Amino acid sequence: MTESDWIRKYIAPVVSAPGADQLRDDVALLSAGRPTIVTMDTLVEGVHFLSTDPCDMIGQKLVRVNASDILAKGAEPAEALLSIAWPTSRSETEFASLISGLAGDLLDFGISLIGGDLVGTDGPVTLTMTMTGTCISAGPVRRSSGKPGQALWVNGEIGWGLIGLDAARAGNDPKTALRYQVPRISTLFAAQIVADLASASMDISDGLLLDAVRLAEASQCGVAIELERVPLARPAADVEDRLRQCTAGDDYRILLSARPGRSIPGFTEIGMLTESSGLQLSYQGQTINPPSILGFEH
Amino acid sequence: MTESDWIRKYIAPVVSAPGADQLRDDVALLSAGRPTIVTMDTLVEGVHFLSTDPCDMIGQKLVRVNASDILAKGAEPAEALLSIAWPTSRSETEFASLISGLAGDLLDFGISLIGGDLVGTDGPVTLTMTMTGTCISAGPVRRSSGKPGQALWVNGEIGWGLIGLDAARAGNDPKTALRYQVPRISTLFAAQIVADLASASMDISDGLLLDAVRLAEASQCGVAIELERVPLARPAADVEDRLRQCTAGDDYRILLSARPGRSIPGFTEIGMLTESSGLQLSYQGQTINPPSILGFEH
Repeated sequence: MTESDWIRKYIAPVVSAPGADQLRDDVALLSAGRPTIVTMDTLVEGVHFLSTDPCDMIGQKLVRVNASDILAKGAEPAEALLSIAWPTSRSETEFASLISGLAGDLLDFGISLIGGDLVGTDGPVTLTMTMTGTCISAGPVRRSSGKPGQALWVNGEIGWGLIGLDAARAGNDPKTALRYQVPRISTLFAAQIVADLASASMDISDGLLLDAVRLAEASQCGVAIELERVPLARPAADVEDRLRQCTAGDDYRILLSARPGRSIPGFTEIGMLTESSGLQLSYQGQTINPPSILGFEH
Repeated sequence: MTESDWIRKYIAPVVSAPGADQLRDDVALLSAGRPTIVTMDTLVEGVHFLSTDPCDMIGQKLVRVNASDILAKGAEPAEALLSIAWPTSRSETEFASLISGLAGDLLDFGISLIGGDLVGTDGPVTLTMTMTGTCISAGPVRRSSGKPGQALWVNGEIGWGLIGLDAARAGNDPKTALRYQVPRISTLFAAQIVADLASASMDISDGLLLDAVRLAEASQCGVAIELERVPLARPAADVEDRLRQCTAGDDYRILLSARPGRSIPGFTEIGMLTESSGLQLSYQGQTINPPSILGFEH
């Protein structure tokens, strides 16, 4: 089958937005109305997912890592373009599975697939998604708009990416492996909170500590984190284990700054933005030296 | 150097659009005003360009294959997102060269880079660009809006992709090789013509004959092409050579349908859309059997 045939058989059936013109064209018409943001993330086999991961889950992960970026900015995922570089060594069944997982998630998150590209490769499966989002407020909440003295919050639990990856590699606990293969991401309710309350925000994809430093640097301030307050996927055996969960990445939760002294549904306060630059870590009042590696860049 | 360092050192300096927030964020704000279209094209080393092609030229090609899609729809290229899967075996100098070529073309075409992704890969260089365009008229000119009886035009010359690739492989004629490595694409003037005059249009990327059939099929009609009228890159030795140039692809010129009996600056009339489906070829009044392969899907 040619690439056109695969597009017609597997991809066109999951496309219904009028701007896509049934994928009969090189371009799609964006349905931009409210301020529209856009993100782009790439997943490479062997780097961002395991070669043995089921293809439907890889499709779900591609949607989720992009949707997480949109939600973390206080916006609602809207439209997506999909590029697939597909090795000839992979089967049509696997391709169908990839699209099936992806389409299910697009449907669940209310996202329309409007275009993309499909090419052959001699290398690993390489997937790129571009996703737009419509801002709930006047524009996206930036990383760069935090202020010293504001408190720092995360939602969900940190460390599932690490624990899930360990399980996926070991192959003996498929339910825990799922937390790496198909990350849980934030809801539209969380995006609404970002739009309403956050001064700065981002999704945590490369490790809590690294991403907290990035948010602080973009906001031209420092950051202090009280490690005992960080909600963890697994009770920490010791401070080392705690730091491991806070630096491993692949968590796709939201980190936001906001006025201190309030409670935010679904979010846990873990520290604050500071006047002095850099990262200050503490555990139950004791200063902790930051680890040499704060996170992972994939 | 980490991926963040490379983004800061090479990519951030070529980013100036306010919606990009200096690449300090996961998302970019689109500057959508007029109806906005979007396209996405992927280039894989060894499939869409040669491993030996200079990296600056690969960057230019990535911009051009996307801009060609936008221009062919009667729209002006506006903003771009860039995803790079970069093998560790390639040097930083090559990376700098890729960005330099890409940035030069973005500047020439008036396109703002607003975001993207950079990841490692064990496989070939894999580049994906998403590009938006602002429609010159109320919306994009589709492939699907042609009508039987309308004439078919192309601009520029067909066959340079093939002739340039032959030269790039032989390595003895760098000037001709350039026509494959850095394809010449249409101008904004041609996009204005599409917006003003075309009933249907597309860019020719996979071979004139294949793409003409695609336009006709999307428009639910057939197509007749008079081969002697097709403007060729190289005078054809015989009908076989003529067909080879018309099926090889990588030309990135515009194919459009419009009311017959007019002249269109820069375009050559080569045939018409027909009531009966399928492809009819003729050469100087003689019917020619269509070749079994009408073009190449990359």
